[in-house]
Amino acid sequence: MTLEAKLAGLVPEIEANLQAFLGSLDFGHSLGLREMLTYHMGWAEGDCGSGKRLRPVITLLCAGACGGAYAAAMPAAVGVELLHNFTLIHDDIEDQSPIRHGRPTLWTRWGVAQAVNAGDALFSIAQLALLGLVETCGEPIAARAARELNHTCLRLTRGQYLDMAFEEEEVVELETYLAMIQGKTAALIAFAAPVGGLAAGADEATVSGLAAYGENLGMAFQIQDDALGIWGDPAVTGKSAASDLLARKKSLPALYGLRASAEFRALWHEANPDEGQVAAMADLLAACGAREYVSAQAAGFTRQAFEHLERVFPEKNEDGEALAALTERLLHREV
Amino acid sequence: MTLEAKLAGLVPEIEANLQAFLGSLDFGHSLGLREMLTYHMGWAEGDCGSGKRLRPVITLLCAGACGGAYAAAMPAAVGVELLHNFTLIHDDIEDQSPIRHGRPTLWTRWGVAQAVNAGDALFSIAQLALLGLVETCGEPIAARAARELNHTCLRLTRGQYLDMAFEEEEVVELETYLAMIQGKTAALIAFAAPVGGLAAGADEATVSGLAAYGENLGMAFQIQDDALGIWGDPAVTGKSAASDLLARKKSLPALYGLRASAEFRALWHEANPDEGQVAAMADLLAACGAREYVSAQAAGFTRQAFEHLERVFPEKNEDGEALAALTERLLHREV
Repeated sequence: MTLEAKLAGLVPEIEANLQAFLGSLDFGHSLGLREMLTYHMGWAEGDCGSGKRLRPVITLLCAGACGGAYAAAMPAAVGVELLHNFTLIHDDIEDQSPIRHGRPTLWTRWGVAQAVNAGDALFSIAQLALLGLVETCGEPIAARAARELNHTCLRLTRGQYLDMAFEEEEVVELETYLAMIQGKTAALIAFAAPVGGLAAGADEATVSGLAAYGENLGMAFQIQDDALGIWGDPAVTGKSAASDLLARKKSLPALYGLRASAEFRALWHEANPDEGQVAAMADLLAACGAREYVSAQAAGFTRQAFEHLERVFPEKNEDGEALAALTERLLHREV
Repeated sequence: MTLEAKLAGLVPEIEANLQAFLGSLDFGHSLGLREMLTYHMGWAEGDCGSGKRLRPVITLLCAGACGGAYAAAMPAAVGVELLHNFTLIHDDIEDQSPIRHGRPTLWTRWGVAQAVNAGDALFSIAQLALLGLVETCGEPIAARAARELNHTCLRLTRGQYLDMAFEEEEVVELETYLAMIQGKTAALIAFAAPVGGLAAGADEATVSGLAAYGENLGMAFQIQDDALGIWGDPAVTGKSAASDLLARKKSLPALYGLRASAEFRALWHEANPDEGQVAAMADLLAACGAREYVSAQAAGFTRQAFEHLERVFPEKNEDGEALAALTERLLHREV
């Protein structure tokens, strides 16, 4: 079965379970709160959906690759996706992002106060969804998964804290930056993968191998994203060339350049760089070794992600093959 | 043992466990995030503490009254108090409150974005604390308690949603108002009490009796608070006379008055009422029956709280006596 065919089966099933779970909850007099969550999830009338549901796909494929049933892992998959969406609601407030998935963000439409509260509601709902593992896998696995989920959330907020703190800081160490994306991007994938194994009743070595796989996948993905933000083809990324430099985003290439190149540093501190200057900055980054450094970092994490996957699943069933193909696709985007 | 002596023993023990739990967590590079939480909890240097830790006291007394050990219920008590504090961080953002416990609120000091994130961190930490029940009570009780906790959070956000929605509405039905305070105030006490019973291994009838006790206690407390906000003695409440009328707070007496008295309604819509007009409004409320209505509501919930307590603990041990004395104190404040 091709990855396409696999996704074509899994994604609608995840979507149906997400909708069913939210629909099963009692909102009492607070129907407007349910409306906000429905809107955020991309289910409002006339909406054409949202998100690739990538994280719950990883959960289900990991469960399947361990020989487990999708149905047993579904509460975890639903919990992972709702948790991800809770973080999006609050991230959009924190970053003051007006648009997501082509429509106004929750805080833009309902105000900051209601959006903070709706995020909190979705956080609780994500936990409730995950605790459905009680019925499919029993209390010990459910309690273990709930703990891992909340350790993951703590790592997410640690990463988010650093990301915001960086904006105020003149110098950010590369090591601290890696700690930031470890929380902000990698932590949730480092949960999505092993919780699938947990739900399938896999042994400790498998579960921790899947966590390491997910963490490296998340790191590689984010670093590659950083590279695409500067050297990516606008026709593919859908953003303007070197968009992260224009936005003064302290991504990995920029942080490297700020240390390695005095010329880059000088341009970075220009108030309103024109297009020519931004192009010059991208060239300076390449010249000072930032592009090699970033590529090497991404390659290192990518290699480790594949190594962990091979170690956990030396022989792959259909889901294991699909997981490897998905990893391949995620990590070999064109820079 | 008097209630005073009981509290003098319990509160420092709760405080020590709160500090130990937060201290046990790894914040990695994000020490500033831990600093924010330490500040919020009232543990910063030079701070003289904060909060009465009322909810975890209720949890421990309920556990003790059921014949359980405080130590078994302590993870739940710590979780309840941290959860309460998470809601305070986000409530202060949503209400734009600048001061709590005599010091600047988190968002005033660190900005909205970091405060939203710190609240999220504390939400996760509260869940982790509660899941410590795995070690003291086993996984089935821990998983059950985690589910109840998150249903409680959903009720809290439903209540908070309504409270904010009311500000935009011309007319608020009394029934909808009661649904709001059921979420915003009563839900957490309706969790704090029965989770103590759960941790003590109490039977279903006891656990649901404690939930009903907590819910009625919370409702009675909030309605009494509404009465105190209008007719309370400023020397006792520490607020100006009829402060809730000055602030145009849609509390239960005001909502009753808006329906029952055209004169009250007219004054309510005055742009800048002077002190004399506010006093006249308080009198109009009393004259139109609002005070009797509110008193009757508070009395009804109070009676039910005591009835449930008596039904659950017809014979009381020392903790049961302390719980009854605490309930008495909370519900017989002077209006």
